[in-house]
Amino acid sequence: MPRENSTGARPEILRTAARLFRERGYDATSMNDISAALKLSKGGLYHHFRSKDEILYHIMNHAMDITEDRVLNPIRDIADPEERLRALIRLHIELVLRARDREITVILHENHPLPAGLRKKVNVRKKGYIHYLEQLIMEVQRARDSHNVTHRAAAFALLGMINWIYQWYRPEGGLKEEDLVRQYTEIFFAGAFR
Amino acid sequence: MPRENSTGARPEILRTAARLFRERGYDATSMNDISAALKLSKGGLYHHFRSKDEILYHIMNHAMDITEDRVLNPIRDIADPEERLRALIRLHIELVLRARDREITVILHENHPLPAGLRKKVNVRKKGYIHYLEQLIMEVQRARDSHNVTHRAAAFALLGMINWIYQWYRPEGGLKEEDLVRQYTEIFFAGAFR
Repeated sequence: MPRENSTGARPEILRTAARLFRERGYDATSMNDISAALKLSKGGLYHHFRSKDEILYHIMNHAMDITEDRVLNPIRDIADPEERLRALIRLHIELVLRARDREITVILHENHPLPAGLRKKVNVRKKGYIHYLEQLIMEVQRARDSHNVTHRAAAFALLGMINWIYQWYRPEGGLKEEDLVRQYTEIFFAGAFR
Repeated sequence: MPRENSTGARPEILRTAARLFRERGYDATSMNDISAALKLSKGGLYHHFRSKDEILYHIMNHAMDITEDRVLNPIRDIADPEERLRALIRLHIELVLRARDREITVILHENHPLPAGLRKKVNVRKKGYIHYLEQLIMEVQRARDSHNVTHRAAAFALLGMINWIYQWYRPEGGLKEEDLVRQYTEIFFAGAFR
């Protein structure tokens, strides 16, 4: 699976398509709409992507690339599991709040009619992230000798807290990003490791 | 705003329409598709709802009715705020896991192109629930003299944990409903009230 660069024609197409899918709905958006919004000829668009399904799949795949680049890769070398988990929480919240990729990352969580084979590929990557998080939580549990909740329930509690942020958080509201990071980190650490 | 009963033709239409919207997408589902799935004449469907927008709005409104009936009303008479919050967490998780209303309640959280006026009405009801939860968390914070996180961040952390469940929870998996309730309650209480 070729990896998307973050600049160039393809990511620009993916970002624009993701925005249209969210504004108008996936079904109501045509390949014509996408090429028009990009001021691209239809042939130019089809040169990059053969179908709307393919675009949707690549948006989701690109969202997972971004997640690896911005959350997982920067923390790999942190030796202490607790510090690694704190960094993951901070970087994942920053990713969710990052306006530039918002349209891309949000689509991961919405119910879209992707063909089963492509859906499965995306789910494999999502599960990889969840598995990494579960393992990391287990390491912290072991280090703290804390076993009041399972790593599975804890991992999904954390993912729910973070991935839900886009539903309610407004940057112009009273809650600053660093306060959100601090409070969510406190809630999760006090809650999951006692 | 008239309230939907939970039985009869209208809730049956709403449940079926909600299922089709999720399976095929909102835009790809026509009024014809809905009447066909219900084995209802087109006139019969239009007798109840004049448009697809109206159906979508009533699905969301019905979801809020169900939330009040199943979560808020049963806890109003619990005097102790901590017990009331524990009951809210349990009942809200049970609502999210309730197969019968799944298609209805999930639609509340997806991005659908509802006309602005109707969208606003739904949001007012959603905000009412959030406000109730924030107030309740404040009461528990006061009773415990615990002020490490704001009631706002705590409320959204809890809503994220619970409303995210539909993304990953499978009843046939290893985690039983009562274990999920216990663990989420532990994580939230230990995390938000220190």
